[in-house]
Amino acid sequence: MTIPSAVEWKGGWDGELSLLDQTLLPEREERLTCSKVEEVWESIRRLAVRGAPAIGVAAAYGALIGARKLKDLSPSEWEGEYSKILEYLSSSRPTAVNLFWALNRQEEVFSKNQHKNFEELLEALLESAKAIHREDERMCRSIGEHGQALIPQKCRVLTHCNAGSLATGGMGTALSLLYIAKELGKEIEAFTDETRPLLQGSRLSAFELQRSGIPTTVICDNMAASLMREGLVDLVVVGADRIARNGDGANKIGTYGLALVAHHHGIPFYMAAPSSTFDLSLERGDQIPIEHREGEEVFSFAGQRTAPKGVQAYNPAFDVTPAHLITAIITEKGIIQPVNREEVERVLRK
Amino acid sequence: MTIPSAVEWKGGWDGELSLLDQTLLPEREERLTCSKVEEVWESIRRLAVRGAPAIGVAAAYGALIGARKLKDLSPSEWEGEYSKILEYLSSSRPTAVNLFWALNRQEEVFSKNQHKNFEELLEALLESAKAIHREDERMCRSIGEHGQALIPQKCRVLTHCNAGSLATGGMGTALSLLYIAKELGKEIEAFTDETRPLLQGSRLSAFELQRSGIPTTVICDNMAASLMREGLVDLVVVGADRIARNGDGANKIGTYGLALVAHHHGIPFYMAAPSSTFDLSLERGDQIPIEHREGEEVFSFAGQRTAPKGVQAYNPAFDVTPAHLITAIITEKGIIQPVNREEVERVLRK
Repeated sequence: MTIPSAVEWKGGWDGELSLLDQTLLPEREERLTCSKVEEVWESIRRLAVRGAPAIGVAAAYGALIGARKLKDLSPSEWEGEYSKILEYLSSSRPTAVNLFWALNRQEEVFSKNQHKNFEELLEALLESAKAIHREDERMCRSIGEHGQALIPQKCRVLTHCNAGSLATGGMGTALSLLYIAKELGKEIEAFTDETRPLLQGSRLSAFELQRSGIPTTVICDNMAASLMREGLVDLVVVGADRIARNGDGANKIGTYGLALVAHHHGIPFYMAAPSSTFDLSLERGDQIPIEHREGEEVFSFAGQRTAPKGVQAYNPAFDVTPAHLITAIITEKGIIQPVNREEVERVLRK
Repeated sequence: MTIPSAVEWKGGWDGELSLLDQTLLPEREERLTCSKVEEVWESIRRLAVRGAPAIGVAAAYGALIGARKLKDLSPSEWEGEYSKILEYLSSSRPTAVNLFWALNRQEEVFSKNQHKNFEELLEALLESAKAIHREDERMCRSIGEHGQALIPQKCRVLTHCNAGSLATGGMGTALSLLYIAKELGKEIEAFTDETRPLLQGSRLSAFELQRSGIPTTVICDNMAASLMREGLVDLVVVGADRIARNGDGANKIGTYGLALVAHHHGIPFYMAAPSSTFDLSLERGDQIPIEHREGEEVFSFAGQRTAPKGVQAYNPAFDVTPAHLITAIITEKGIIQPVNREEVERVLRK
C-alpha cells in the first residue's frame, strides 16, 4: 500500500499536471488532469489540492502551463501577458503565502529566460517547477530524519489536522516522522483527531496513514484528553502554519488545547515545520493574525444543518500554542529544543 | 420565546403522553403523541426522548399507559401481566438507571392500589407519574436557584452536551443556572460546544438556549481553549452522569479536557446534578464504568461518511473529571465546595 501523491507532473514542457482530488477523500480516490491554466486555478480554489507546500508546487507547474498561452504572441508581448497570467493564478487562494512565493520564483525564471526561444523558456520553467517539487520532497524527508531522535522504537503518536503527504510535494511535515520511523522498522501506531470543522484529520490524515500501512485510529477532537489519561499516547506531533521568533506557533484550531492537555499528562508535544514557516519579523505568537471563518462550517456538515437558525458561531481557523508548551520544533535544519528565541535563531542560522 | 417541553401529559388517566421528537431537532420541531405502550417504548428506544431525568418522567407516564392494557383482564391476572409490561418498557434503554427507578416506583404504586377498582388504580398511577414529573421540575429549579451564588450579574457561560430542559421534566440541571439567572435579570451570554460525536450541544443546547432568548454561540469542541485564552468565557457549567463519593464526576466525553483547559486559564468549572447522580458506593471516579460505543459514530458526521474504511475508532461515551478540577458541584440540596468526600457527604446528608 502506498499513498497517492498530491501533485505529479506527467511528460515534458507540453505535459500535464496530475492532482489527487482531495475533496472526494476518503470516499473516492480520483485524479484530476490539468492542461489549462484555468483548470489549475479552479483546482486550487476549490481545495482539490491544499496544504501550503502542495499548493506551492502545483502553482509552480501552473506557471509553466500558463506560459504555454503565450505561444501565438510575439516575444515583445510576453512579459505583460505573463504578468496577467500569474496574477490570475495568485487569485485562486488569496491567503496562501507559498502560492505567491512559487509564482514569484517562476516569474524570475521567466525574466531570466525570455530572451531564449519559446521552447527553451518553457523548458526552464519546467526545470524550475521540478526543482521546487524536489526541494519540497527533500525538506519533508529531512524533517522526518531529524525527528527520529525523538521517536522511540515503539510508540503511539497522536496528530491533528493533516500535515502529511497530501499537504506537500513529498511525505509531509509532521507525518514524515511516522513514515521515516516505519521505514526504519520502528513499531508505530497512529491516532488522529478528526479536526472539526473541516475534518482534515479523519478525511485526510487517516486516509494517508492507513495507506502507508500504519495502524490508525480516529478520535473526535474532544477525546484526546481521555486517550492520554488512559496512557494510550506516547507523543503528539502536529504541523504549523506560522511560527514567531520566540517559538510560539500557529496551527489548525484545536492545536493549543491539545498542547495543554498533553502538557498536563507529561506527554511530549512536537511541532514539525520547514524553516520557511518561521516569520522572524514577529517577536511573539500574539502578533500572528488569526483568520476567522464563516459560521456555516460550524453549523453544518455535507449540507446537513446541525445547529438551529439564529445562533452565532465562533470559528477561528487557527490558534497559537505558546513556546513553553512545545517540547521541540523539528525543521529540515534540525531540532529546536528547548523552544525559545535563542534556539530558534541558532537552528535557523544553519 | 419559550422552550418546548420534552415531556407533557394531556388529560386524565385516559389521556396521552406528548413528547418533543428530539431526533428532528434543530431542523424541525414536532411532537409525538403516545397512547399505546409500544409507542412509548419506541420513543425511548430511538432517542426521541433522551436525558436521564426526562426518560424517567416519560417512563412513569408510560407505566400508566401500560396499565390501561389490563382493562379486559380479571384483577387476579393484573399483577403478572403488569410485570411483563414494565419489563417490556425497561428494555427500551437497557442502561438508563432513571428508567428502572421510575418503573420500580410505579410498580410499588400498582402493588399498593391493586385492591381498588380499575379507574382508581389508573388514577393512582397518574398521580404518581405527575408527582415524579413535579419532583423533577422542583429539582431543576432548586439546582438553578442554589447555583445563583456562583453566577455574576453579567457573565458568559460555556456548556458542553445537553444538560438542559430537553433532558429533564423541568428547566434542566446545568442550564437551569442560566435560565434562573435570566429570570433574575442577570445578563447572560451562552457558548456551547457542539459535542461530537452526537452533537447534543449544537443540536439541542443551542436550540433551547436560543429559544429562551439567551444570546448563544456554537463552537466546535476544539475551540474552547482558544475561546478561553481570548478571555471570552467567565465560567463553565456542565451536567453529570455519575459522581463518586470523593466528587470525581463522569459526564459526556470531552468534559475532562474542558475541565483541564478551564483550570489552566483559571476559569471556574462547575458540575450541576441532582443528588440522585451520586453513587456513594464508589469511592473514586476510576471505579465508574465507561461505555465504549461503536466506531460508526466517529466515522460519520450527520449521516455522511468522513473516515476511510479500514481504520479504527476510539469512542468512549463518557470521561471522568477528577474532583480537584471541579470548582463546585451544584445539587438541589446545595453547593458542594470544595469538592471532596467530606463536603459531598455533608451536603447530601441535608
